[in-house]
Amino acid sequence: MSNSLIIHSASQLVTVAGDAPKRGETQSELGIIENGALAIRDGEIVAVGATEEIRTLATNETKLLDARGRIVLPGFVDAHTHVVFAGDRANEFEMRLRGASYLELLKAGGGIMNTVRNTRAASLEQIVAETRARLDRMLAHGTTTVEAKTGYGLDTATELKMLQAIYELDAAHPLDLIPTFIGAHAIPEEYKGRADEFVDVVVEEMLPAIRDSKFEIRNLFCDAFCDDGAFDLAQSRRILERARALGMPLKIHADEFANLGGAALAAELGAVSADHLMVTRRDEMKLMADANVIAVLLPGTTFGLGKHDFANGRAFVEENVPVALGSDMNPGTSWCESMPMAMAIATRYEKLTTAEAIVAATLNAAYASGVGERVGSLQTGKLADVLIADVPDYRYLAYRYGANPIRMVIKRGRVVYAI
Amino acid sequence: MSNSLIIHSASQLVTVAGDAPKRGETQSELGIIENGALAIRDGEIVAVGATEEIRTLATNETKLLDARGRIVLPGFVDAHTHVVFAGDRANEFEMRLRGASYLELLKAGGGIMNTVRNTRAASLEQIVAETRARLDRMLAHGTTTVEAKTGYGLDTATELKMLQAIYELDAAHPLDLIPTFIGAHAIPEEYKGRADEFVDVVVEEMLPAIRDSKFEIRNLFCDAFCDDGAFDLAQSRRILERARALGMPLKIHADEFANLGGAALAAELGAVSADHLMVTRRDEMKLMADANVIAVLLPGTTFGLGKHDFANGRAFVEENVPVALGSDMNPGTSWCESMPMAMAIATRYEKLTTAEAIVAATLNAAYASGVGERVGSLQTGKLADVLIADVPDYRYLAYRYGANPIRMVIKRGRVVYAI
Repeated sequence: MSNSLIIHSASQLVTVAGDAPKRGETQSELGIIENGALAIRDGEIVAVGATEEIRTLATNETKLLDARGRIVLPGFVDAHTHVVFAGDRANEFEMRLRGASYLELLKAGGGIMNTVRNTRAASLEQIVAETRARLDRMLAHGTTTVEAKTGYGLDTATELKMLQAIYELDAAHPLDLIPTFIGAHAIPEEYKGRADEFVDVVVEEMLPAIRDSKFEIRNLFCDAFCDDGAFDLAQSRRILERARALGMPLKIHADEFANLGGAALAAELGAVSADHLMVTRRDEMKLMADANVIAVLLPGTTFGLGKHDFANGRAFVEENVPVALGSDMNPGTSWCESMPMAMAIATRYEKLTTAEAIVAATLNAAYASGVGERVGSLQTGKLADVLIADVPDYRYLAYRYGANPIRMVIKRGRVVYAI
Repeated sequence: MSNSLIIHSASQLVTVAGDAPKRGETQSELGIIENGALAIRDGEIVAVGATEEIRTLATNETKLLDARGRIVLPGFVDAHTHVVFAGDRANEFEMRLRGASYLELLKAGGGIMNTVRNTRAASLEQIVAETRARLDRMLAHGTTTVEAKTGYGLDTATELKMLQAIYELDAAHPLDLIPTFIGAHAIPEEYKGRADEFVDVVVEEMLPAIRDSKFEIRNLFCDAFCDDGAFDLAQSRRILERARALGMPLKIHADEFANLGGAALAAELGAVSADHLMVTRRDEMKLMADANVIAVLLPGTTFGLGKHDFANGRAFVEENVPVALGSDMNPGTSWCESMPMAMAIATRYEKLTTAEAIVAATLNAAYASGVGERVGSLQTGKLADVLIADVPDYRYLAYRYGANPIRMVIKRGRVVYAI
């Protein structure tokens, strides 16, 4: 059996090569090779270049794949998801369409606590099975690495169950999962009006339990939801500082509804990313740029809710902040398994160009997920996570929308999806 | 070979049966049969009901299809498209993302005249081949009938070439195409500043040429673009009155940018539909309701341009106007081949419920396309245009977005797409 593959004759080989993460003027650098090719061996990229060059590397055992008329690009990295959960909230979606208020939704058992109840009640096997179907659809849309958060447990046992689900899926599914702990995703109903006490639980019970578990804490992000209706700046700081002391890399949900100072906190604490960022100010963007904090934008959240207050992606590019994209796949606001869809919204409503959106969905998302050295671009030595899209030019990835442009997905050198 | 098929055990058989077109309170009537089934013979639906009933109709020759855990619904009808053309305008999309003004786009050769030049220059075979690929993707997303307009010719010969392409594709492709003549789609550059003279050409040259052609004029809609930058009310009236005198059913593009009175004109002339309708007033909606004019809403046009002024679908439902949906598939503003995508936008931004959007994308769109008696619902005697979607409940068709929920497409009783 051959473990050597050459993909050749791509109308455009979109390498996304270059310095990383990309920001400002380089946010749009795609490193395109016309009539390009790449060679893969043992799951890694071993050569990238012009078709006539790369084809000379073929031996009798090399499998050849003709990408004529199509583009070849790095697998998408989805930098922010809540893909692990049980149940759904279709009923809540319908109520919202009929004009139900937030309070009416809560009264009807809706909102995030609905998913928390379902996820607490579900077995590990059930959570894994339901999530696997979503990962399959994500893979079919070109996602080869996905960040996945806990946060529908809000108690130590269920948070650990969710982490276990992430690890099992990472091992069993072709997609790679990047784990993030977000015990501070919401204030659970049993702690209503006692947010500080719940923060005690996160800091004094959950984080130590994770430290003492089998999970490698240095590869586990800690995140906190710093916003109106969630955790305030002091509470978020307390959690993230404790996590940092334990050696965890940091993320923060900030500025989705109200500006509580989360973006500046991310800069101060050296977080890898700050996410959502609909109401972030220019001076805070400058702090992020100086501290190398990546802006993870989630256009699907705004779209999913039928809202108009999209994050200003253009401003982040102008302020030299590296911009990454995520689907925010979650059962409440954005059941979207497609990074091309996220790019279609980001270009139209967050004012990124298609090239900037591609960098945001590949290399910058990889850096936001802590794996920028291994995936996110087509460069020698990186994992062979490669997509073939049925379009002749990269610009079609956003110009056309609503249909899946991906025809083949290669993960670590293996064809895991083809149509 | 068997020509008899029974699809059974659907978690929901969404029949959309009942009076038609549906409007006001009935706009949301889905006629759902839980654990439902339907029987097909010789391309037509011969029985619809509970699984245990319908299964007793099976003979030795009947093919059985188990839809357990999935919903079964009528094929989508896309009530408004410009799917027939040559070339693309990806470059214009990119320029717009970079902030180019409308005038800058025109100077760079962008805008509708770009597509007119490409379509005039293209051979019939090239137009058919390029369009066929789009129809294939539409079919994969569940569209079984599609309205298709001319209007990228703007001269008699090219308008006739486009009609010929529509007829050839209708004959050769599993999808059914409904032809619409829209010679008054734009004022061609050679008539700049002489719109009335161009209207003369439409009325005195194009319409007679179509009347004298092999095309059956009573099955051919006539449409006109009544808006700022296109044709004014008097010009639109002149074209549509002439078409009506020839026996053509009418449509109108109205109220996309400015309210010139197009919706009221549609009511006065007894048009089958008025389309776009972003700035239509309530009093005009009442005129439409009284005259049985269907509102064809095109959420993809607003989304495609990254704009926020979506049509108010809720108001049309409240005013008792039947609402239909179309993709507005076209190379300039909305390259979207997916009716589920149109529904995802319509629910979030035009305030239709999922049930209303399904009726709008099936039965009402069929009536807007003049084929409501033959397709658009799962009822005995209608064509067997049937979808199987990989969701357990109809509400998921809009709640989840960005991925294709369609797993099987049956057109006239024949499986034409399955995954």
